[in-house]
Amino acid sequence: MANIAFIGLGNMGGPMAINLVKAGHQVSVFDLSKEAVAHVVEQGATTFDDAISCVKGAEFIISMLPAGKHVEAVYLTPSSGLAEHIKPGSHVIDSSTIDAKTSQKVASVLAEKGINFVDAPVSGGVGGAVAGTLSFMVGGSEEEFAQVKPILEAMGKNIFHAGQHGAGQIAKVCNNMLLSVLMVGTSEALQLGLANGLDAKVLSNIMSKSSGSNWTLDVYNPCPGVMENVPSANDYQGGFMVDLMAKDLGLAMETALASQSSTPMGALARSLYAMHAASGNGAKDFSSIFNVFNHDK
Amino acid sequence: MANIAFIGLGNMGGPMAINLVKAGHQVSVFDLSKEAVAHVVEQGATTFDDAISCVKGAEFIISMLPAGKHVEAVYLTPSSGLAEHIKPGSHVIDSSTIDAKTSQKVASVLAEKGINFVDAPVSGGVGGAVAGTLSFMVGGSEEEFAQVKPILEAMGKNIFHAGQHGAGQIAKVCNNMLLSVLMVGTSEALQLGLANGLDAKVLSNIMSKSSGSNWTLDVYNPCPGVMENVPSANDYQGGFMVDLMAKDLGLAMETALASQSSTPMGALARSLYAMHAASGNGAKDFSSIFNVFNHDK
Amino acid sequence: MANIAFIGLGNMGGPMAINLVKAGHQVSVFDLSKEAVAHVVEQGATTFDDAISCVKGAEFIISMLPAGKHVEAVYLTPSSGLAEHIKPGSHVIDSSTIDAKTSQKVASVLAEKGINFVDAPVSGGVGGAVAGTLSFMVGGSEEEFAQVKPILEAMGKNIFHAGQHGAGQIAKVCNNMLLSVLMVGTSEALQLGLANGLDAKVLSNIMSKSSGSNWTLDVYNPCPGVMENVPSANDYQGGFMVDLMAKDLGLAMETALASQSSTPMGALARSLYAMHAASGNGAKDFSSIFNVFNHDK
Amino acid sequence: MANIAFIGLGNMGGPMAINLVKAGHQVSVFDLSKEAVAHVVEQGATTFDDAISCVKGAEFIISMLPAGKHVEAVYLTPSSGLAEHIKPGSHVIDSSTIDAKTSQKVASVLAEKGINFVDAPVSGGVGGAVAGTLSFMVGGSEEEFAQVKPILEAMGKNIFHAGQHGAGQIAKVCNNMLLSVLMVGTSEALQLGLANGLDAKVLSNIMSKSSGSNWTLDVYNPCPGVMENVPSANDYQGGFMVDLMAKDLGLAMETALASQSSTPMGALARSLYAMHAASGNGAKDFSSIFNVFNHDK
Repeated sequence: MANIAFIGLGNMGGPMAINLVKAGHQVSVFDLSKEAVAHVVEQGATTFDDAISCVKGAEFIISMLPAGKHVEAVYLTPSSGLAEHIKPGSHVIDSSTIDAKTSQKVASVLAEKGINFVDAPVSGGVGGAVAGTLSFMVGGSEEEFAQVKPILEAMGKNIFHAGQHGAGQIAKVCNNMLLSVLMVGTSEALQLGLANGLDAKVLSNIMSKSSGSNWTLDVYNPCPGVMENVPSANDYQGGFMVDLMAKDLGLAMETALASQSSTPMGALARSLYAMHAASGNGAKDFSSIFNVFNHDK
Repeated sequence: MANIAFIGLGNMGGPMAINLVKAGHQVSVFDLSKEAVAHVVEQGATTFDDAISCVKGAEFIISMLPAGKHVEAVYLTPSSGLAEHIKPGSHVIDSSTIDAKTSQKVASVLAEKGINFVDAPVSGGVGGAVAGTLSFMVGGSEEEFAQVKPILEAMGKNIFHAGQHGAGQIAKVCNNMLLSVLMVGTSEALQLGLANGLDAKVLSNIMSKSSGSNWTLDVYNPCPGVMENVPSANDYQGGFMVDLMAKDLGLAMETALASQSSTPMGALARSLYAMHAASGNGAKDFSSIFNVFNHDK
Repeated sequence: MANIAFIGLGNMGGPMAINLVKAGHQVSVFDLSKEAVAHVVEQGATTFDDAISCVKGAEFIISMLPAGKHVEAVYLTPSSGLAEHIKPGSHVIDSSTIDAKTSQKVASVLAEKGINFVDAPVSGGVGGAVAGTLSFMVGGSEEEFAQVKPILEAMGKNIFHAGQHGAGQIAKVCNNMLLSVLMVGTSEALQLGLANGLDAKVLSNIMSKSSGSNWTLDVYNPCPGVMENVPSANDYQGGFMVDLMAKDLGLAMETALASQSSTPMGALARSLYAMHAASGNGAKDFSSIFNVFNHDK
Repeated sequence: MANIAFIGLGNMGGPMAINLVKAGHQVSVFDLSKEAVAHVVEQGATTFDDAISCVKGAEFIISMLPAGKHVEAVYLTPSSGLAEHIKPGSHVIDSSTIDAKTSQKVASVLAEKGINFVDAPVSGGVGGAVAGTLSFMVGGSEEEFAQVKPILEAMGKNIFHAGQHGAGQIAKVCNNMLLSVLMVGTSEALQLGLANGLDAKVLSNIMSKSSGSNWTLDVYNPCPGVMENVPSANDYQGGFMVDLMAKDLGLAMETALASQSSTPMGALARSLYAMHAASGNGAKDFSSIFNVFNHDK
């Protein structure tokens, strides 16, 4: 069993840390929120007064933070940054969803100090974090991937090796950009059918068994009444927030700008989600975009 | 076994008629092309000098024609139209992909004469037509659906009841509009990954097992080298032509205009496919849209 | 002075007919609304119990109707249609905004009877109709154009010859599609400036004097507080209704489909206006699309 | 007359510096290209071996550099950056088109040292630079604006005060995003008219005098044969390059992401220009986007 430090115990990080405890690892945790820390300590983790003490003896350091600037600050701030306090030979796993450039910068500084690094953003949401069924998209060398895989398996079901440092982040933004397009396209198609007299369940069934089949139609249907146990069955509560999709689409657009890639559908999805968020729907599930195409509002 | 007349023996209609022959039905066929007729007659169908003689004794009349104007002309032209020559009580199955309004108009005129009608457009392409694995999306009453289903099963695998007259057409355009969005979105996501150093096979595998999963990514991958036996492995030959996708997107836009529906992604896909066709790619498979987003052209 | 029949006395047709009266023409009018008729008769027009009597002695027949189906019905309905009652050698001017195909069909039937025809849709709104400052976009032969021009000058300021029959309608949809793109683009640019701390008046002034200059920015600014005497200064009341813009964009899309033209911006504008109308803004001025891009809603 | 240092003598900077010389100012220049320097020195400027010497005695320092990273490097690099060598009380005018954040950062560091700063990006292209008819969009305090205005008047015709530091950059990206939308929308409308039989000159004239009027239609028409002395009359040579428009749209998208603004048309224009550049048209004038919508290619 490994000695693991976990930094960042939010909605995702908290349950991920608990799954590590349950798997028998020695887990020390740190977060600015005392409450978040207390909840994980109850489950058997230990804690420290500061992040530096927390990571001192760890073989694996996992971070789950909101944005690139936090990741850069936590690891690279001169003197107080963890890069100067993690012991050489240990493994940093950053599961934050951030831009690939920051991941690569952190990887490079840590490498100079003999510390291994992978970017390992997740998909699967809070439900997957609690159930330990997350997908991890990992960027790092073959060796680094092999070393962190057993640890990630305590928190997830699918552990993908996407490529070198930063590749985990790229894979994540590609997937989530595509996901947003699937959701908008599925919503438009269902609304077009409804507006022309079709039944949403019947149409969903037909398209799911035809070439329109896709994740959002098949297992996360945005039209109320088609499926149970999805956000659309619950007034779009829970699930994956519009604000988070908008954030991921922002990262996708930055990635596209950097590589001068043309992504007309992804860019349109980004504008539609920004519009939807600005109309007061930021905290709803991202399948609520379905309502934007309702011609009977 | 039934007595069936089949009008329209093109790339799709020909193999469909042959499958009816193979299933043991009595099939009489008609097409303006002698060559197309000869090919089906070789397999055991009979033929007549004109469409009217062809449908005279039939219990089921199946048509597979290019556009709404042909369907309207074949059935409704005064005196020479089949509506005045088909015997009451028989069943018309129009498998052409046309606008729902024309389907409804034909259904209504035939109903006045005691003739049953279903619109039953297909998906699955020439390959599905030959293999007898087409999907049929059927519009008509419950009773009409029940009566034609056994006949359709000789030509297809999935026989869907979409709703009343015209609903088959609506389901088809909804599905194909969604399909075009999936293809464009998948192409953008794969190209974005490639432009940022990812391997297309690795990225396809990750997204297929994640929330980016969709028909175009999973079984019809547009990136050369990822899959075998798909058009992208064969220089985009065969498959579903760009010109046909553009035609179906035209029908989708007309449907959206009629119901004042908002379909931003579908409309964007329509413009991109029109652009792609205008650049000389009309005869390629629709997955060739992948190249439009290649930043290294 | 000419003998003119005027059919269709709505918001536009009423004031147009009155301007003809004021110019000294003999004007007989017809509309299904008694009230609309009475208002124009008060100004000096005469009226009849039916459209046929109204057009009997006229040298010029002007129609201003809501859609293509009304125009087709008024002129081409067997026996009751005006085509059979207008005297040969007279001039039909259809100022309705409809599809070019219907204009061409009516022109062709009238030509067979020796009746001249021009399509002459207008821009300029109710204000322009009242003030007699409309623009007319005329489709017809050089000779037909020359003959109707003096009549149109009683109702408008700019009389353009767009080309052959139907060309007036094409010019109108091209212009209005472009107008919608200008309005959306201007709204996005102003909102982007506002969201980043700029003053809307200052930014409008800069762009108006730079390469961003366009009609919607310069004389019909969508941002409240920048200009007086525009709909944005009056809670988007009056002006050119969202529903009418959505109708014109529908005609533009049908035109684009028929010629297989690619119009990604026009198609996006059409979806945005359909969305805006569906959110309950159909009766507001089309510059109210500005609010859709407000990030502080 | 003022003592002015000018850093960056590219296609724009060179003629701008020459206009300052012609206006009678004392101009010292610096660029890494000896050739570029020699050309301006011929016209009466002086030069130095390094940028630091060049700015030492200057009251005004003007920079014209390709991107934000260059501006940041030139002014803020520790010890060799100009911020440590410009004399307090002098005025820095950065005419580079860069992100507003970098402008604000440079402004803030310079302010600490008692140096004034304005961001003053230009529009008008190489032609405007040579003719001294550029537009300047200036960000800075009222006082800073008043102080630099006389200097800018030697190089430009319209000197706009956009707002505080960074506002010049924001105004520029808003204008150029709008410009790209005008160009694409105008191109679509003209192509739609052409595809439906209209004459481009006739249609341009009609729309220019109607509500479709805009800068790209009226003075920079993208359709060959409509105007003389514009890039479309010269195979799209000269003018404002596609690659530069793509760069400016990238800045616009970054600005929109930062403020979470929704800009669907701007984002679509960005994708279309990225696509156009990737097809090998990066060095053509941006009006060449017209060809993308040609349905007869």
